[in-house]
Amino acid sequence: MLAKMLVDFPNALKSARLLAEHGIVSALNGIDLPVAEAMAYAVTGGKGLRAFLVMESARLHRIDTNAAAPAASAIEALHAYSLIHDDLPCMDDDDLRRGQPTVHRKWDEATAVLAGDALQSLAFQLALSVDCSPEARAALALSLAEASGVRGMVGGQALDIAAESAPEPLTLSEIETLQAGKTGALIEWSAMAGARMAGADTSALQTYGRCLGRAFQIWDDVLDVEGDAAKVGKALRKDANAGKATFVSLLGLAEAKRRAAKLVQQGCDALNPYGTDADCLREAARFVIARET
Amino acid sequence: MLAKMLVDFPNALKSARLLAEHGIVSALNGIDLPVAEAMAYAVTGGKGLRAFLVMESARLHRIDTNAAAPAASAIEALHAYSLIHDDLPCMDDDDLRRGQPTVHRKWDEATAVLAGDALQSLAFQLALSVDCSPEARAALALSLAEASGVRGMVGGQALDIAAESAPEPLTLSEIETLQAGKTGALIEWSAMAGARMAGADTSALQTYGRCLGRAFQIWDDVLDVEGDAAKVGKALRKDANAGKATFVSLLGLAEAKRRAAKLVQQGCDALNPYGTDADCLREAARFVIARET
Repeated sequence: MLAKMLVDFPNALKSARLLAEHGIVSALNGIDLPVAEAMAYAVTGGKGLRAFLVMESARLHRIDTNAAAPAASAIEALHAYSLIHDDLPCMDDDDLRRGQPTVHRKWDEATAVLAGDALQSLAFQLALSVDCSPEARAALALSLAEASGVRGMVGGQALDIAAESAPEPLTLSEIETLQAGKTGALIEWSAMAGARMAGADTSALQTYGRCLGRAFQIWDDVLDVEGDAAKVGKALRKDANAGKATFVSLLGLAEAKRRAAKLVQQGCDALNPYGTDADCLREAARFVIARET
Repeated sequence: MLAKMLVDFPNALKSARLLAEHGIVSALNGIDLPVAEAMAYAVTGGKGLRAFLVMESARLHRIDTNAAAPAASAIEALHAYSLIHDDLPCMDDDDLRRGQPTVHRKWDEATAVLAGDALQSLAFQLALSVDCSPEARAALALSLAEASGVRGMVGGQALDIAAESAPEPLTLSEIETLQAGKTGALIEWSAMAGARMAGADTSALQTYGRCLGRAFQIWDDVLDVEGDAAKVGKALRKDANAGKATFVSLLGLAEAKRRAAKLVQQGCDALNPYGTDADCLREAARFVIARET
């Protein structure tokens, strides 16, 4: 059983990632503009964790793969837009992403701004192309808008930028608020997507998604200290070198890892109503704190 | 009758603008971040033409003001995002907008990128808060996503940027394609919004919106040559000084004005199915080629 699970998760992750990328690239078909090339470039080579969460939560709620696929594409388009804009010189000023030149390095800043902008529009276009009831479709897209905006992802990014010029490093509670927006909101949305498409109760998947997101953020800070830049595909130790407070700087490495493991356990427990049908999601949670990239 | 119409349009424009701004500012209530301040700043002081088109087309289709208002806020939020990003140093590099410092001049580039990003999310959040049938709501938001993206507004902006480094000035047909995306798609969406919310036939309003958008673009080029920078509130003669092809450079001033007037007439004629009930929309079309800003 354990062996089966371990085999299933990497396959499910890869399938979801390829399905999501395919949906985005298909939507860009026939557009002869550098900005469209940049959009396709930016969505390839990621882990596909968010797409996987969408597809797996959809499967749990008996939503057909083809019906749910646009939602997986939507979240990967939205995630890719956020990475393009985060990498801009006026933001984190990064040259590498996923081991490749960032969009503004490979093209230019104007193309990077526009590719991000158009990927956000495309995310809503795709979310509104999911084959489910109109009520569920509208609710899915509305929750995506809320999770992405100033009370969600952009708000978290704004707090992150403000922290760089703040006189004091952030407290643990401030970092939690920042991360809940910056990365948590979209991970939570992804985990809840299947229940939303089915018009079902979202609470179990919400708890799972929230725990997974928190564990993911802590592990990002662990990787920033312990990771191998060649594997991670981007510059590391930037936070530590910049004197930024992180989960690791505030908790220490051992306690940070312990908290991440506890969150993974809580997330797995929240899936009890789904029984063993949710084993692949449990495996995903364990992967989050075992990953090297 | 004529006197009444002339009085009605400025009032309807102002009401729609204030309603749209109020909806956006309310949505930002309680957020204590510079990015939220920048978002509110960017949506104030515009003409409100797009909001007016939404509210007036909604009135034509007997949609209640409060039910339709979020759609008017949505399009003004989306328009404001596009202006913030267009003004960035890597794009048009403008210091003034509506007679005030642009967002990246008043705050900084990172805040401008994020405020634009969050205004786009907010636009979809608002469009998905319209009080109509779930089918119509989902269709309204989907069409907004299509009009904003790489096949709509962003595509037009990308063509505009590419034109700056092109060896030859654009032809008339290329400028028409560029403008149909850059400004046409959202004006058309606004004019069609009322019929979409009602689940009614959109074709008359689509023709009206398309003609209005084209007239609007031609008149922008006229203002770039004949306008008063103090009234327009931004730098003028940039296109002419940069040697960019415009409707005026390709057609001459007199022919450009003649075409705009013809488009306004076509747009007004398209409204015949609505009878005199559409007189305020006709007045708006005439305003577009009489405006000084």
